[in-house]
Amino acid sequence: MTLSIAYLGPQGTYSEQAALAYRHWLASQGAGDAVELRAYPSILQTIRAVAAAEVDRAIAPVENSIEGSVTVTLDALWQFETLRIQQTLILPIIHSLITYAPDLAAIEMVYSHPQALGQCQGWLLRQCPRAKQIPTRSTTEALEHLESAPTTAAIASQWAAELYQLPTLAIAINDQPDNCTKFWVLGTTEHNVGQYTSLAFSLPVNAPGALLKPLQILATEGINLSRIESRPTKRSLGEYLFFIDVEASATDPRLQTGLQALMTCTETIKVFGSYSAIPITPGPKAEP
Amino acid sequence: MTLSIAYLGPQGTYSEQAALAYRHWLASQGAGDAVELRAYPSILQTIRAVAAAEVDRAIAPVENSIEGSVTVTLDALWQFETLRIQQTLILPIIHSLITYAPDLAAIEMVYSHPQALGQCQGWLLRQCPRAKQIPTRSTTEALEHLESAPTTAAIASQWAAELYQLPTLAIAINDQPDNCTKFWVLGTTEHNVGQYTSLAFSLPVNAPGALLKPLQILATEGINLSRIESRPTKRSLGEYLFFIDVEASATDPRLQTGLQALMTCTETIKVFGSYSAIPITPGPKAEP
Repeated sequence: MTLSIAYLGPQGTYSEQAALAYRHWLASQGAGDAVELRAYPSILQTIRAVAAAEVDRAIAPVENSIEGSVTVTLDALWQFETLRIQQTLILPIIHSLITYAPDLAAIEMVYSHPQALGQCQGWLLRQCPRAKQIPTRSTTEALEHLESAPTTAAIASQWAAELYQLPTLAIAINDQPDNCTKFWVLGTTEHNVGQYTSLAFSLPVNAPGALLKPLQILATEGINLSRIESRPTKRSLGEYLFFIDVEASATDPRLQTGLQALMTCTETIKVFGSYSAIPITPGPKAEP
Repeated sequence: MTLSIAYLGPQGTYSEQAALAYRHWLASQGAGDAVELRAYPSILQTIRAVAAAEVDRAIAPVENSIEGSVTVTLDALWQFETLRIQQTLILPIIHSLITYAPDLAAIEMVYSHPQALGQCQGWLLRQCPRAKQIPTRSTTEALEHLESAPTTAAIASQWAAELYQLPTLAIAINDQPDNCTKFWVLGTTEHNVGQYTSLAFSLPVNAPGALLKPLQILATEGINLSRIESRPTKRSLGEYLFFIDVEASATDPRLQTGLQALMTCTETIKVFGSYSAIPITPGPKAEP
């Protein structure tokens, strides 16, 4: 049986690199023989595809070390009730400046995804201070603008440049060398094994001060909190959901006790499953 | 003396509406005779202008009730040491579909800022399901694309449509009727009066679990927490800054005691000042 995986396309995006890394890992587990990757035009459509059972898995970016949370992913996880996190993986992000321009001085326009532009802001201001920065829906879409003129450039991965046979003028142009993006592998299968658990809740009194109680419960159980992120409930300004990652499996008795206690001090609580991290090997680059 | 105010331009953006509301309020306080509004091409450049003393004030969006935090504003506040919050104001956001197309079926492309597209996602999927959505840097920039063809549309405010004398096909197309954006008026003058105080800190152990202590301190002092937002430190994945809004003035003895205690359990702590909310009157629309 073929396992189908949705990712934010087109080919050449960092999401596709993450999907290839996941396929590589599945192969190493003896499960990668028939894996089909399917590109979707937005992160929301990628996640909706797995929630609607069009595909078996979706690869969704969750958090970048510079830009922070990918809010559409958190909001979709809350919205689509059936989604469970199956695995996580962390991909290093190394941006290249891809262009037919002979030198940096010739560049008048730089296209890329807003997050990639943001991650190279300091470099762009130093090296191409007069270039206009134009947002695109993906790093790969930015490459489409290179045909028009040798005065345009795109920011994307070196791997995308090779895939589309485009020239690179500068590599590793990120402002921060430690740039990486965490992805989740989403599916609709219950998944309760692994050292990480993610959950989210709203609070009965609609005040972030009421967050103290849930944090006390986790601390009392000795459960380490690795991330907390607030999102608007979208009902009215000042009402929030809280997304929490903890270092404990759903089968851990401490977390089971903690979850019972959390139910008494939250309004709605959703547990998105337990999962482990897939190690990234240099494999994916070689097998597009 | 003229007071200069930077905002995310060009003319017709919601940021300009907020700047006009601020000017209207200044006039009501007897201080609005000589106010000059200056448009900047990005939120970061708007905030940088006031930090560099090019202007006296900057109007920066902070948080939308649907999309959540405007992260560039939080990151800039942490980065530029001299910035202080002078006031806050909450602007209702009501989007219109602006187009020369005779009907919805004729529309092939919809341009707008990614947040505005996101806020009308449900409406667009129902009414223009085949239209391609194209991000722009501001809602006003989207209007530039209308000249090219009667098959394009832009999402912006009704006020922008009137300002540029463009036809509107649908009004109030937001998915959520309660859509509003909170803005901060930023300056470099110390400002310690008002019922709200904003601050941010990093934690010594780089684990969100250490957030419990600061929240306990605020609760002990009886200080209400109205917002908490995490942002990456940008050093490495999993290290965060926490931005906190409290309902207390910096001159409040409870907050003074609380801040002393917070200094003992945080790594770096920055207080961005105390401020009050400016009431929005129907005035700004009439005086572009």
